[in-house]
Amino acid sequence: MPRIVVDVMPKAEILDPQGKAVHGALPRLGFNAVTDVRQGKRFELQVDDADEATLAEVHKLAETLLSNPVIEDYAVSVEGAEVGA
Amino acid sequence: MPRIVVDVMPKAEILDPQGKAVHGALPRLGFNAVTDVRQGKRFELQVDDADEATLAEVHKLAETLLSNPVIEDYAVSVEGAEVGA
Repeated sequence: MPRIVVDVMPKAEILDPQGKAVHGALPRLGFNAVTDVRQGKRFELQVDDADEATLAEVHKLAETLLSNPVIEDYAVSVEGAEVGA
Repeated sequence: MPRIVVDVMPKAEILDPQGKAVHGALPRLGFNAVTDVRQGKRFELQVDDADEATLAEVHKLAETLLSNPVIEDYAVSVEGAEVGA
């Protein structure tokens, strides 16, 4: 069964308090190589068939249920292959 | 500046209430193509140089701060190229 991945990230211009919290914790833990952190969500959707109709449905789903388009960007990919954003 | 992505997902055998909640909402919204949903986290880490030392640090970071290895799996990739899991 194909798997469709939807990655949802805060837009670049939006403050990301979760990412800031992770970034702030790094020096205390002895990590110094990372200069910035952004935290988002990853959804793995199982589908019977990754055809065009299903992908259109997933894009609509990503836009309405999985992300808030005002503050977040999403990207849809099928088993590693990027399909749209 | 290279970007390292860490994807953190609940292990397959672990119950995922967030994913179940999303899955449960789909039929009500008219989506029927998706048979299962798992929800996890995605971290985008900015680094100055994605060399071996940095990757080793990011793996340690993913294991200790970004994921709970008892219930979650993580995967590290550099700008799309999978580096380890």
